[in-house]
Amino acid sequence: MTSFVRNAWYVAGWSRDFGEALSAIEITGQPLVMFREEGGTLRALEDRCPHRLLPLSKGKRIGDTIQCGYHGMTFDGTGQCVRVPGQENTPKSAYVEAFPVEERHGIVWIWMGTPERADPAQIFDLSQFSDAGWHAHHGEALHIRSNYLNVAENLVDPAHVSFVHPTTLGSAASENVPVHVSTSGEVISAWRWIRDAPPVGFFQKFGGFEGNVDRWHYYDLHMPSTAVIDFGSIDAAANCAEEDRGQGVRIFALHFVTPVREDYTIDHWMHLRNSALGDEDASAQMDAMFKVAFAEDKEILEAVHASEQRVQRRKPIRIAIDAAPNVYRKRIRDRIAAEATDDLGLAEGGSFITHD
Amino acid sequence: MTSFVRNAWYVAGWSRDFGEALSAIEITGQPLVMFREEGGTLRALEDRCPHRLLPLSKGKRIGDTIQCGYHGMTFDGTGQCVRVPGQENTPKSAYVEAFPVEERHGIVWIWMGTPERADPAQIFDLSQFSDAGWHAHHGEALHIRSNYLNVAENLVDPAHVSFVHPTTLGSAASENVPVHVSTSGEVISAWRWIRDAPPVGFFQKFGGFEGNVDRWHYYDLHMPSTAVIDFGSIDAAANCAEEDRGQGVRIFALHFVTPVREDYTIDHWMHLRNSALGDEDASAQMDAMFKVAFAEDKEILEAVHASEQRVQRRKPIRIAIDAAPNVYRKRIRDRIAAEATDDLGLAEGGSFITHD
Amino acid sequence: MTSFVRNAWYVAGWSRDFGEALSAIEITGQPLVMFREEGGTLRALEDRCPHRLLPLSKGKRIGDTIQCGYHGMTFDGTGQCVRVPGQENTPKSAYVEAFPVEERHGIVWIWMGTPERADPAQIFDLSQFSDAGWHAHHGEALHIRSNYLNVAENLVDPAHVSFVHPTTLGSAASENVPVHVSTSGEVISAWRWIRDAPPVGFFQKFGGFEGNVDRWHYYDLHMPSTAVIDFGSIDAAANCAEEDRGQGVRIFALHFVTPVREDYTIDHWMHLRNSALGDEDASAQMDAMFKVAFAEDKEILEAVHASEQRVQRRKPIRIAIDAAPNVYRKRIRDRIAAEATDDLGLAEGGSFITHD
Repeated sequence: MTSFVRNAWYVAGWSRDFGEALSAIEITGQPLVMFREEGGTLRALEDRCPHRLLPLSKGKRIGDTIQCGYHGMTFDGTGQCVRVPGQENTPKSAYVEAFPVEERHGIVWIWMGTPERADPAQIFDLSQFSDAGWHAHHGEALHIRSNYLNVAENLVDPAHVSFVHPTTLGSAASENVPVHVSTSGEVISAWRWIRDAPPVGFFQKFGGFEGNVDRWHYYDLHMPSTAVIDFGSIDAAANCAEEDRGQGVRIFALHFVTPVREDYTIDHWMHLRNSALGDEDASAQMDAMFKVAFAEDKEILEAVHASEQRVQRRKPIRIAIDAAPNVYRKRIRDRIAAEATDDLGLAEGGSFITHD
Repeated sequence: MTSFVRNAWYVAGWSRDFGEALSAIEITGQPLVMFREEGGTLRALEDRCPHRLLPLSKGKRIGDTIQCGYHGMTFDGTGQCVRVPGQENTPKSAYVEAFPVEERHGIVWIWMGTPERADPAQIFDLSQFSDAGWHAHHGEALHIRSNYLNVAENLVDPAHVSFVHPTTLGSAASENVPVHVSTSGEVISAWRWIRDAPPVGFFQKFGGFEGNVDRWHYYDLHMPSTAVIDFGSIDAAANCAEEDRGQGVRIFALHFVTPVREDYTIDHWMHLRNSALGDEDASAQMDAMFKVAFAEDKEILEAVHASEQRVQRRKPIRIAIDAAPNVYRKRIRDRIAAEATDDLGLAEGGSFITHD
Repeated sequence: MTSFVRNAWYVAGWSRDFGEALSAIEITGQPLVMFREEGGTLRALEDRCPHRLLPLSKGKRIGDTIQCGYHGMTFDGTGQCVRVPGQENTPKSAYVEAFPVEERHGIVWIWMGTPERADPAQIFDLSQFSDAGWHAHHGEALHIRSNYLNVAENLVDPAHVSFVHPTTLGSAASENVPVHVSTSGEVISAWRWIRDAPPVGFFQKFGGFEGNVDRWHYYDLHMPSTAVIDFGSIDAAANCAEEDRGQGVRIFALHFVTPVREDYTIDHWMHLRNSALGDEDASAQMDAMFKVAFAEDKEILEAVHASEQRVQRRKPIRIAIDAAPNVYRKRIRDRIAAEATDDLGLAEGGSFITHD
């Protein structure tokens, strides 16, 4: 059984990361070569010449094609071979796979599954991207030597914040506050409010709060691995209703979790905020604080992964705060299993009949 | 079959190595977190939170407990979970294994087997530790990328000294001197006397000898992996009897061999001596000379281990000087086999009946 | 099935590389210790003491013998044990394998197969080594983290030159020139002429050509892994016949490809030339240019090897220019298969009878 959901859009990077130069990346164990055509279209091809397997990213751009660096076989942006030096004909098997690519709001998405199923309408979006009352700031990429399930699970897990991020995003005040969990379509949500407590480090710095605040953390994990963390604070005296959190200082921290290999994951992170609009100093200061927190996550997630590789004499236990991670892991397992039996046509509406 | 004797006391380090900070070590492939309670008691716990497997050594001390660095599960020095943040009850499966720890003469011992069988009376001791006529000096830890059987075997093998340590502990004079071997209970002994020869480097420096000496090497290997090397020299004219070696300059070099993993062993070494009592300069000079010799051992033992990992087209041969190593390896095999069938109760006096 | 042809002479290095010191090398996965006896004879022994497996190269020379660095077992240049310290007799099993060694023209050859089959008459030779009209220059050793088949195949593949070496040995003018292939006994040949084109970088520098030239590349691969690349240029106006290339500026680039392990190959390279005889400046300048080209090969060959280690979802394709590499790989497979069934005697003229 393969370990990744393949019929999904994954983030390859920011639009600014890709230009005319050949760029080698890897997603779900698949090496890809990416480049931007002269007209601006971004292409993603299998990074392996079908002849002697040299990565095409070791070759060079010739107009909108890639010439292999070993014997000069040349491929266009759709993966078709357009030249085999030393012969007239081009064999049918001379192609590389092409992967659908889409750009939205400065984010590059690649579809790693069956190309016919790629539906750009399914790409993650958020109305705030196009809302003048919000500021979007693209961050960086965090490289983590841990399985992507550990990384994604951590993003639907408000309970770790008190212990992993005590100086930035959490505090002891929230250690025992229960977590609520719900699901809605392809989204798993875990959230909690910490009412009437001193502001945590982040909101001391960016909220300008002096007294106690109400603080919320809503973790929405969009299958298979995009997380939206809606967190914010508001003066405790305002007695804010859960649905009115737009009245406080509110941040959407986005994490696009891309499985590279079993033991290697990249988390492209960015944020949207409803304050300090257009203030790039504020963006830079928030980045700095996020990086402190993400380095804390990285250390934990890599240690967990290393520990998982050992022989286990006892099964791990699950506790109350694991409700959302449990749902998440089950859904991933189910989707991978469904993809494995795809050819039966059941997923396409076929029926399964038992006679007894 | 497991590769280590488990029902044994192994040395974790010197008492001075462990304080209130969490300390991560590994013995027989088992990660351990160690810490000293406020009252001074030393604790050794399985270094793996039962929840998400994070090593507890990544967490922090809260009084005499350890709080996991991921979600705050908290364990006391016996391994019992005393807190699960986010819930009231504590599941029965919320514990980590605790390993019996004892301290003797500044040495920390851990029992890696069935806790009920841990008998502190079995811990290695030597009357000279408490003898005012002797000076004990704790050395350091030699980290060796070799299986522990190679390391321990080398410590019941006087024959290698002439070839591996020609400038410090041995000389060509002893190349062909036969080795005597005997066993007594849990101790395997190999020894020889080199009579009427020039002093080796060590005793030129520390014995003050001018003429020829009688030199002895007694290697006592206490199962499973503690070695006492009784070596010394005396003026050849004294015609010293074997049992009178207390009259010469005499050193007990101790090696506590701790298997970390199959390919990694730590040798904690120290010595006792009947001369230069209380002279720390002498201790430091001896350490320096020992380190020259141990670096020579390390190079050989790591090369042997690397060579053993290759495919072998022929079986190794055994020669006359291997008598003690052969006994040692057989005893280890037998103990591991006995531990593997432990549950049958045979080791506890059960009987095995055949009907023919 | 083993992955190497064993009954073959492989190059261990240049004569100048080996002296009285013990030298550890590895060929076809076999560790070897080499040394030159006092009389000058070069010896190659299995680098593994039969006792505790320490590489003998960790020991020391005692006259024309090697004394093991662990317990002093001593072996002569034929691999026979001549001393076992601590005992009188020498067991029959106390030996290391010895490998036939020959030196020719400053090149050291080792036979890695059944010693009885070693025939020095089969060692690669070239009449130009002894021809006063030619200058031989021994180069260096290129270490490549790639399987030797990739390295050797590249040396019977003129088509890669245009793409991998565009500034030194090839140019775009040759991209589509067809390759001729033939075989003759143990030699596979691929060649082509590029007529009436500007000289490539190498012959701009060393030929002194101003106008267009005719350029040839003859790649002769002598089984299993010695390559002779006969390349040169001559004024296009001369209208040189293929057999008259001695009239031009002509180079024989030799590559002795030695499989170290599956993923590691050493290419000892040198050249002979019919110009600039005795001019060591010219040798050094050619070396510098060759090293540019060989670094280009190394990068490609290591990337191909790494790509081959991945799971392949589709078979590689073969194209027209692969004719010679295809023949080469088939011959290697056939020789390895023949060696695997050697004991049946079929290779020695035995017959295979079927009754129907």
